[in-house]
Amino acid sequence: MANVSKKVSWSSRDEDSAQGEDTPLLNGASAVRYTRQFSGSSIFHIGRLSTVDLEEEHSEEEGAVLSRPKEIPHNEKLLSLKYEGLDYDNSENQLFLEEERRMSYMGFRCLEISRWVVCGLIGFLTGLIACFIDIVVENLAGVKYQVVKQNIEKYTEVGGLSISLILWAVLNSAFVIVGSVLVAFFEPIAAGSGIPQIKCYLNGVKIPRVVRLKTLMVKVGGVICSVAGGLAVGKEGPMIHSGAVVAAGVSQGRSTSLKKDFKIFEYFRRDTEKRDFVSAGAAAGVSAAFGAPVGGVLFSLEEGASFWNQMLTWRIFFASMMSTFTLNFFLSIYNEKPGDLSNPGLINFGRFDSDSVEYNLYEIPVFICMGAIGGLLGALFNVLNYWLTIFRIRYIHRPCLQVMEAMLVAAVTAAVSFTMIYFSNDCQPLGPDQSEEYPLQLFCDDGEYNSMATAFFNTPERSVRSLFHNPPGSYNPLTLGVFTLSYFFLACWTYGLTVSAGVFIPSLLIGAAWGRLFGILLATITSSGSIWADPGKYALIGAAAQLGGIVRMTLSLTVIMVEATGNVTYGLPIMLVLMTAKIVGDYFVEGLYDIHIKLQSVPFLHWEAPATSHSLTAREVMSSPVTCFSRIEKVGTIVDILSNTSTNHNGFPVVPRVSDDNEPGRICGLILRSQLIVLLKHKVFVERAQSRLQQRRLQLKDFRDAYPRFPPIQSIHVSQDERECMMDLTQFMNPTPYTVPQETSLPRVFKLFRALGLRHLVVIDHENRVVGLVTRKDLARYHLGKHGLEELQLAQT
Amino acid sequence: MANVSKKVSWSSRDEDSAQGEDTPLLNGASAVRYTRQFSGSSIFHIGRLSTVDLEEEHSEEEGAVLSRPKEIPHNEKLLSLKYEGLDYDNSENQLFLEEERRMSYMGFRCLEISRWVVCGLIGFLTGLIACFIDIVVENLAGVKYQVVKQNIEKYTEVGGLSISLILWAVLNSAFVIVGSVLVAFFEPIAAGSGIPQIKCYLNGVKIPRVVRLKTLMVKVGGVICSVAGGLAVGKEGPMIHSGAVVAAGVSQGRSTSLKKDFKIFEYFRRDTEKRDFVSAGAAAGVSAAFGAPVGGVLFSLEEGASFWNQMLTWRIFFASMMSTFTLNFFLSIYNEKPGDLSNPGLINFGRFDSDSVEYNLYEIPVFICMGAIGGLLGALFNVLNYWLTIFRIRYIHRPCLQVMEAMLVAAVTAAVSFTMIYFSNDCQPLGPDQSEEYPLQLFCDDGEYNSMATAFFNTPERSVRSLFHNPPGSYNPLTLGVFTLSYFFLACWTYGLTVSAGVFIPSLLIGAAWGRLFGILLATITSSGSIWADPGKYALIGAAAQLGGIVRMTLSLTVIMVEATGNVTYGLPIMLVLMTAKIVGDYFVEGLYDIHIKLQSVPFLHWEAPATSHSLTAREVMSSPVTCFSRIEKVGTIVDILSNTSTNHNGFPVVPRVSDDNEPGRICGLILRSQLIVLLKHKVFVERAQSRLQQRRLQLKDFRDAYPRFPPIQSIHVSQDERECMMDLTQFMNPTPYTVPQETSLPRVFKLFRALGLRHLVVIDHENRVVGLVTRKDLARYHLGKHGLEELQLAQT
Repeated sequence: MANVSKKVSWSSRDEDSAQGEDTPLLNGASAVRYTRQFSGSSIFHIGRLSTVDLEEEHSEEEGAVLSRPKEIPHNEKLLSLKYEGLDYDNSENQLFLEEERRMSYMGFRCLEISRWVVCGLIGFLTGLIACFIDIVVENLAGVKYQVVKQNIEKYTEVGGLSISLILWAVLNSAFVIVGSVLVAFFEPIAAGSGIPQIKCYLNGVKIPRVVRLKTLMVKVGGVICSVAGGLAVGKEGPMIHSGAVVAAGVSQGRSTSLKKDFKIFEYFRRDTEKRDFVSAGAAAGVSAAFGAPVGGVLFSLEEGASFWNQMLTWRIFFASMMSTFTLNFFLSIYNEKPGDLSNPGLINFGRFDSDSVEYNLYEIPVFICMGAIGGLLGALFNVLNYWLTIFRIRYIHRPCLQVMEAMLVAAVTAAVSFTMIYFSNDCQPLGPDQSEEYPLQLFCDDGEYNSMATAFFNTPERSVRSLFHNPPGSYNPLTLGVFTLSYFFLACWTYGLTVSAGVFIPSLLIGAAWGRLFGILLATITSSGSIWADPGKYALIGAAAQLGGIVRMTLSLTVIMVEATGNVTYGLPIMLVLMTAKIVGDYFVEGLYDIHIKLQSVPFLHWEAPATSHSLTAREVMSSPVTCFSRIEKVGTIVDILSNTSTNHNGFPVVPRVSDDNEPGRICGLILRSQLIVLLKHKVFVERAQSRLQQRRLQLKDFRDAYPRFPPIQSIHVSQDERECMMDLTQFMNPTPYTVPQETSLPRVFKLFRALGLRHLVVIDHENRVVGLVTRKDLARYHLGKHGLEELQLAQT
Repeated sequence: MANVSKKVSWSSRDEDSAQGEDTPLLNGASAVRYTRQFSGSSIFHIGRLSTVDLEEEHSEEEGAVLSRPKEIPHNEKLLSLKYEGLDYDNSENQLFLEEERRMSYMGFRCLEISRWVVCGLIGFLTGLIACFIDIVVENLAGVKYQVVKQNIEKYTEVGGLSISLILWAVLNSAFVIVGSVLVAFFEPIAAGSGIPQIKCYLNGVKIPRVVRLKTLMVKVGGVICSVAGGLAVGKEGPMIHSGAVVAAGVSQGRSTSLKKDFKIFEYFRRDTEKRDFVSAGAAAGVSAAFGAPVGGVLFSLEEGASFWNQMLTWRIFFASMMSTFTLNFFLSIYNEKPGDLSNPGLINFGRFDSDSVEYNLYEIPVFICMGAIGGLLGALFNVLNYWLTIFRIRYIHRPCLQVMEAMLVAAVTAAVSFTMIYFSNDCQPLGPDQSEEYPLQLFCDDGEYNSMATAFFNTPERSVRSLFHNPPGSYNPLTLGVFTLSYFFLACWTYGLTVSAGVFIPSLLIGAAWGRLFGILLATITSSGSIWADPGKYALIGAAAQLGGIVRMTLSLTVIMVEATGNVTYGLPIMLVLMTAKIVGDYFVEGLYDIHIKLQSVPFLHWEAPATSHSLTAREVMSSPVTCFSRIEKVGTIVDILSNTSTNHNGFPVVPRVSDDNEPGRICGLILRSQLIVLLKHKVFVERAQSRLQQRRLQLKDFRDAYPRFPPIQSIHVSQDERECMMDLTQFMNPTPYTVPQETSLPRVFKLFRALGLRHLVVIDHENRVVGLVTRKDLARYHLGKHGLEELQLAQT
């Protein structure tokens, strides 16, 4: 690795002065400054003494590595620069402070009440959407299965079941094509479950288009089609995304897409408030999907919260409760039992009887074993899906191809299902309390039905419930084994298709199948069948293990599972199982969502800085030199800097006066690109204010009106005369940005950054002069690899 | 109110220079500096322009107000200075960084694993303690009730029941005297439930002696005595305190009281780690008490977490699970059903059948009504208890008096109970599935029992369960009404006695009683009895409402109730009820724990700064002038400053050189009193290092060994020669303390302080010079009163 190549003009001088005066600490540290270019370079292992040089002319030996990013635009060793951070930290400029100080105590009370109203609305609308999806899917799937069932029954006698197969495959493909076209051509961000995207958003990364109305429309349409199309997917994951979009929309009191402004909730038009509401929306989504309001709150906190606030949590809980309640209420009306509120959630694990719920001490090792199996299978699933995703990124990036792949998967799913059912000879008697919706007789005797069909010829939600609750003996082990195997690969192939779909239900289904199999085998091996009598219990544990092995969620998933089961007795075993699955799975590969986040090269901040990163200081991680503005700056300079596409900075420290030789000035504020854009748009120039005294003073409202889609700098016309004007940034900049000295260790910088949800952190020297800027990318670059601390490369894509 | 009285010498100069150079913002703001004296003065209302002068000579007109604090040492308008903050923020000095950098990745893994081991141990031991308390209480109470019952049966026939009354009262008093003597004479901090103290600890306030072994012993002994003594108390609250003590002990790997050092977990000997473990301990306590592991986690987070960390949360959850599991397991062995793990927790609400669990939409307004009643009754309870506590603080502060009061309450409780039972003529038939432990026949016919006795002649836990589950018709309305009334006042009188006891169970019992009464009346009024058939459901809702009205916990209490019920269906109604109770209750008075915290004048930081505090800046809230040390400081100066009892500062900014005229220097570090004490103790003087080169270099271990009971400065002998030596603070100070500019608004300062759990926050001017220091007291002083922002006075007591 090359050594220090170039010091920016003033930085060496600064170091000298620091040594000379009162920072002898610097002598001991082997800190090295470097300028950074984003053209790409390889991954460096950072030791205490390593120095990094990212300038291309010095790294010819890394040419081979350098060329890789061109092959694979998405790579988990890259960090994309196209993602911006959210401004979770309020810019407390003069306008803001004046507004806050003007506001009376009653004003704050009203705000607080409107926050509650917004959360209630979010919950209500999310519940409604869940209800809509559920009813439409049930009906479409019902029609489909009825048609196919009649067809099969018709041809079972006379032969020619291949026609049924074709009918089934065509119906499935038709649904899936519609869903896939919607996603691929109209809104690609609506693909998948949306959970990785929402995780990123809650982490503080702005994912373009993720919380737009159009995304919601496509998501809802897409998920209906893909579930009705019989893919191995669930409708639960997308609910989380839907809830988030609802929250982002409702809380702003307007729709930019529909160009409709209701003139309400204007105070909430900033990232701080919006992100809080989006957490509530995500929680409401989880809550509607699983009937798990507490689980929803924990999901939001686990994924999003940097700072836990009691009132916020309580509001999130309210949104969650509202959404479960709404869904529950409308479904109860739809099911003609109005007012019966004891069946919350899109998926319902059914009621576990008190008798079957009990477990014994000696079962705990068995559960832990199952957790390990779940971890292994989950890791396998993730690795396969990872390869598949890499393949997709390389070769299947055109929408047409994506639609064709989705169609293919739909047809194959139907074909596999049909073949399985066809060759299965597991016939079970039709009981009096028949829980099967579409019992297929096929080649079974009268009064019997094909047991394989209960698993395949059904919506996945119903199949899960059957596996949990059907009495012992409903399935034979071979059926379960074959089903697990085939569904595993189908689900793995399906996740990542260009359709809206979740991975929760397929995971649960796979797990429930092998869990039940496990339970049956256990009862067979141990002759004392009565103890291990209930295979449904093992199905539940298996489902938890598999899901935990794939998504690696912890506390929130435990609570979600417990709430969906409706019985807290299983808390301990589920927790143990999830913990084991996570530990075993993490040994091999990360969770599915994290894999997809990494493949998108999102600068995602984890909870803590890598353990061994105390050797790094702010000086080493910061970006420098920093582009600063003078407190009173020439318009031309501002326009030029904002227009510079090669840097594309978003936050600019403000100093009293930028000197010509780029000497660092004392920090006196921080201003954002978005604020400058608004100022330019309104032409807030010193000369104008002097000439036209009646000109309206810019208010916070003007910034809010432009939020969140600030126009690009190119669309703002600045004449040659105006370029010579001056702009006074004093009342618009944040006069008290958070700063750290340059000797601060990386974990300390990280903690401050993460706890306060910052976007820019100014690094200062001992005289309060700006020497660098730490942004999200500077912190997300470092991660613990197999060989110690590794650094990701930055890419413009 | 008097105007600015005195500016510290340099502060006016600093203001001038700020105006002259680059902080024109200051011109607009009406900021005023003031020096502060802690002798006490009245409460000021702070407006945008008000200026505060706390010097006594200017406030003769407030003499009447000033004299009050002498009467009442504890006052909710005071903020005590005797409480120190915890150092949750790591002091990242050179020693620390060197240690961290030396540590390998495997070292961090081992640390992580030992954290898990500690959490497992915490859970296990907490579970064991809960188990011990439960078994001892059950047996003692069993013996007592058997003796009294036999006595009553003997005298019912022959007359002379007054002897039974005396027997009962004497037995109760005997138990209570033992418990009360333990608490009053040996460890007064063990009084009450300990929840307010743990709340404070988790909030970051060091409460003296609160997590010591002796406190645990007294707590356990005390709670056994007070529950066995038949007081209107529960054994659940104290479990939270017990868990916290266990955590603080186990995590340190040694006991200072027993002078035993196991030489393990040495890394955890600092406030940061200890506080995290104490959260786990508190959660384990809740979990053992209510069989509510998730509730426990949420309790810890709601009370303690400033920064939510996924791994920490997961560990806390593990501790919680372990504690429920341990308790469950050992109790199952004790109950001779080994391995049956479906009965977690000290209190168990019993199993609500699936049928009785359902509720209907039209019941929700009824539930909300009950929530409002709970809020009102809770507020009444709190107000009465507040007055009582004030009375106790004024007049009952001698241990003997405290023991006598406890004895009196015990006797009165027995007398009231006996009278109630005696005059009740509510006889119920003894059913075949008799759930009563000690059915008293008294004057009832054969085959019947006195229904009032089920409520009074029983441990409160059993009474709660009877109210939830006894079939409709087990109680007549009059019994319930009289019981509610008498128990309400008894419980209110009991809370705050000098005994270890919790308020959860009495609250639940009061609520369950009036809730059941409410249900019965509802069924009577509406002729359609079948709909409102189950009074047990209303008992549950009433219990939630009453408890919520008293303690005002929100999310965590919902989850605790749901987990204790074992059924998630009641989630929504319980949440609505708790929310209503909180809103209604907060209108009148704060929660019980908050009242007691305020009466102790603890500088407790809430989640956010008061809404209207944007008008204040760091300049106005900070303490100044600040005592700074030079980087190389004379030992004599350090000893003198540390010995100054009138200031008693704990954190000292370090500047290159303190000038004689007290001109502020540039911040280059922060050093704590505890660090200085250790340095003085080891005589780490520059001269010594030069003369004896072989002298061992001070290591982090030396600081850890002294933690947490650093000796007072008076115990360290420094000779006159040594006073002339110099100390080099460079490698011991934290070189990168968090700083804020003096224009930072209070909410912004507050957020930084709270999110990072700081103890000292240095306020700097634009040239990075120390101008002030913000500590916990400076922030906790401000709160929203009836007339806007109010400021509490500071008191040395």
